[in-house]
Amino acid sequence: MIDLTLLGCGGNVPMPNRFLSSLFINYKGRKMLIDCGEGTQVAMKKYNCGFKTIDLILITHLHGDHIIGLIGLLQTMGNSGKTDDLTIVGPVGITDAMNAIKVLVEYLPYRVYVIENPKEKFSLEHDILKDIDISTIDLEHSTECIGYSLYFKRKAKFDRQKAMSNEVPQILWKKLQEQDTVIYNDKTYYSSMVLGDERKGIKLSFITDTRPTFEIPQFIYGSDLFICEGMYGDDLDISKAVKNKHMTFREAASLANAGNVDKLLLTHFSPSIEEPKDFAHNATNLFKDTIIGEDGLSLSLSYKD
Amino acid sequence: MIDLTLLGCGGNVPMPNRFLSSLFINYKGRKMLIDCGEGTQVAMKKYNCGFKTIDLILITHLHGDHIIGLIGLLQTMGNSGKTDDLTIVGPVGITDAMNAIKVLVEYLPYRVYVIENPKEKFSLEHDILKDIDISTIDLEHSTECIGYSLYFKRKAKFDRQKAMSNEVPQILWKKLQEQDTVIYNDKTYYSSMVLGDERKGIKLSFITDTRPTFEIPQFIYGSDLFICEGMYGDDLDISKAVKNKHMTFREAASLANAGNVDKLLLTHFSPSIEEPKDFAHNATNLFKDTIIGEDGLSLSLSYKD
Repeated sequence: MIDLTLLGCGGNVPMPNRFLSSLFINYKGRKMLIDCGEGTQVAMKKYNCGFKTIDLILITHLHGDHIIGLIGLLQTMGNSGKTDDLTIVGPVGITDAMNAIKVLVEYLPYRVYVIENPKEKFSLEHDILKDIDISTIDLEHSTECIGYSLYFKRKAKFDRQKAMSNEVPQILWKKLQEQDTVIYNDKTYYSSMVLGDERKGIKLSFITDTRPTFEIPQFIYGSDLFICEGMYGDDLDISKAVKNKHMTFREAASLANAGNVDKLLLTHFSPSIEEPKDFAHNATNLFKDTIIGEDGLSLSLSYKD
Repeated sequence: MIDLTLLGCGGNVPMPNRFLSSLFINYKGRKMLIDCGEGTQVAMKKYNCGFKTIDLILITHLHGDHIIGLIGLLQTMGNSGKTDDLTIVGPVGITDAMNAIKVLVEYLPYRVYVIENPKEKFSLEHDILKDIDISTIDLEHSTECIGYSLYFKRKAKFDRQKAMSNEVPQILWKKLQEQDTVIYNDKTYYSSMVLGDERKGIKLSFITDTRPTFEIPQFIYGSDLFICEGMYGDDLDISKAVKNKHMTFREAASLANAGNVDKLLLTHFSPSIEEPKDFAHNATNLFKDTIIGEDGLSLSLSYKD
């Protein structure tokens, strides 16, 4: 099970009553964050997220409302006893930004690795997070910006028939469910010899800030949850969306439809929208399973079978 | 009159229910700020401070809880139509910090001047803020840290007798109350020829973060308001105060006494103190006119006669 907390749902500037858009992900006790604006660490404290076991932070782009909070958060993580490595992924420019941030941060008791603009699908070398395939997509914003897709792989089930027909000694059955190969009596056995067909994992995609692009539907295709920016609720604000390189609720819903996702969660609302739910119909008319984001919203994603 | 808003009263890390310590000063419609941690711009919005007419930001030291908010604030000021110059004053290292901050900030539509570790009393070349003499003092914290004293000078009153005895033509009386010299019929007249004795201005001093030092009482002497850190309320936390280079309420009150100030305002409370007012007696026992800071607290300082 994957536990998600939408730490904030605001765009542009932090507001007294709305944290900036950021997603907190808890997977088997290890934590990840997507975007980190000013105040994200305050939201994390408010929603009892914990700072010590964050292993991965994904940054969509280098606008202040998506990255400034890193400075304080890195320090707070250090003060919370974190000593494990941290990986930060971001678009072109993230290395320079991290170098600037290091000038502003005192000593950190953990190592920070930066991955800049990864073009290929990758996963971390990490006991638990290795289960997650991470992909990125170039978006169309006023600065270099990337979206993320996280695919949480699911282990295949043990298949007793297969193990027996492959003549795997019973003593190895458990081991081969935990590791890829075992050498026993000079013979190599593979996990595929005892495991059944691959099972469908969970796909989570996160797209902000951008205009809709032709590539997005394929990138998000079949997501269990598609988290998408909805800067403007009112259809009439389309010209602002075009000018500022953002989306309306309707445009986000249209992507959700085209991408055949299970659920759409809207976030990154303009400070000018007092009550985003007032505009929900502009999304639900097109895509019924739309959730209008709010600060602290919790969601859990489970495997389907 | 000088209007003050204590934007926050917290130390170390921003909390869901307490903004970081920062002071907002409104003097004749021009604005100043002392310290700017993560979330200070949110507090400014909450307390309706306005971003456009900030001319001066004083930074005590480069710990995150005193400077990180600058990045977002500078951007928000730019987005609020500010085009006038901004001056930022800070301790040794502020220039490097500002250079790092500039990497993280996109274009700003105003010029930023940095004054690093000024040793002499100075005032800005500014129509209104020229009235303020600014002094600094070296403090004793775990990093380079300076305190500030702001002396708001008060113009002398027009003295009709003096003007007449100095044989200043009546046509110049008003002009000489507005400018220092006037040349009329080839003769130079000085404002001192029409103005009475200098009048007492208003002194505001701001001391955080530090241990008490022998120099502080003289530096803050006679302040109308002495704003001071009170990291720990409980007298028994003195060992923490010594270790972390902070003060207890009692120590701050003792400085207020020694400095013969009118009022003490405590701020920069440890996140471990849930209700700072519970410890008020530890200060008021020594110094009666102590105010325990709280977010959004407003105060006005007026000339005494």
